[in-house]
Amino acid sequence: MSNLKDNIPAELPQEVFTDLLVAEGVRIERILSQGHSSPASGWYDQDEHEWVLVLEGAGELTFENGDKVQLRAGDYLNIPAHTRHRVSWTDPEQRTVWLAVFYR
Amino acid sequence: MSNLKDNIPAELPQEVFTDLLVAEGVRIERILSQGHSSPASGWYDQDEHEWVLVLEGAGELTFENGDKVQLRAGDYLNIPAHTRHRVSWTDPEQRTVWLAVFYR
Repeated sequence: MSNLKDNIPAELPQEVFTDLLVAEGVRIERILSQGHSSPASGWYDQDEHEWVLVLEGAGELTFENGDKVQLRAGDYLNIPAHTRHRVSWTDPEQRTVWLAVFYR
Repeated sequence: MSNLKDNIPAELPQEVFTDLLVAEGVRIERILSQGHSSPASGWYDQDEHEWVLVLEGAGELTFENGDKVQLRAGDYLNIPAHTRHRVSWTDPEQRTVWLAVFYR
């Protein structure tokens, strides 16, 4: 058994990506952000679908078509493969913990 | 966008199982428990693997080999397919919210 709060650094100069489960066809990742936006330039354009949940904190996703979605604790969203998007904002005042389930 | 707290009943006379995502090869489910154990008799014996996370509250899993695992908020665990187990206890004093990712 493990805990989502395991191995959280005291400071987050960069986003931290941690695999919680890697299996055939599914990967579960914890993402820690604080004031970050990503990727540095351009868009995420993924071969896998992504179901993403904000566990604490707050973030904003922007999609290529201009849609913006603000997510707070408990909010979740499904992002189909090759739906170009970016993390356009995360709260600089607190840690944001994302849980992302990537699947084919 | 949806929220994990959507459609939570005020009382939980029975456990509540809600699909948050259903896709080919993966299913994400929210489970609400309060003082329940399940299944009523015997074991869960699943064709799918299950990655399970406790988001709030507390529960205990018992495995066929006698192992018991207590989970509190943030604890997660992977249960391979056909690993017989049951939910032997959930906290009667508060709601327990589980997130379960079933995959093949």
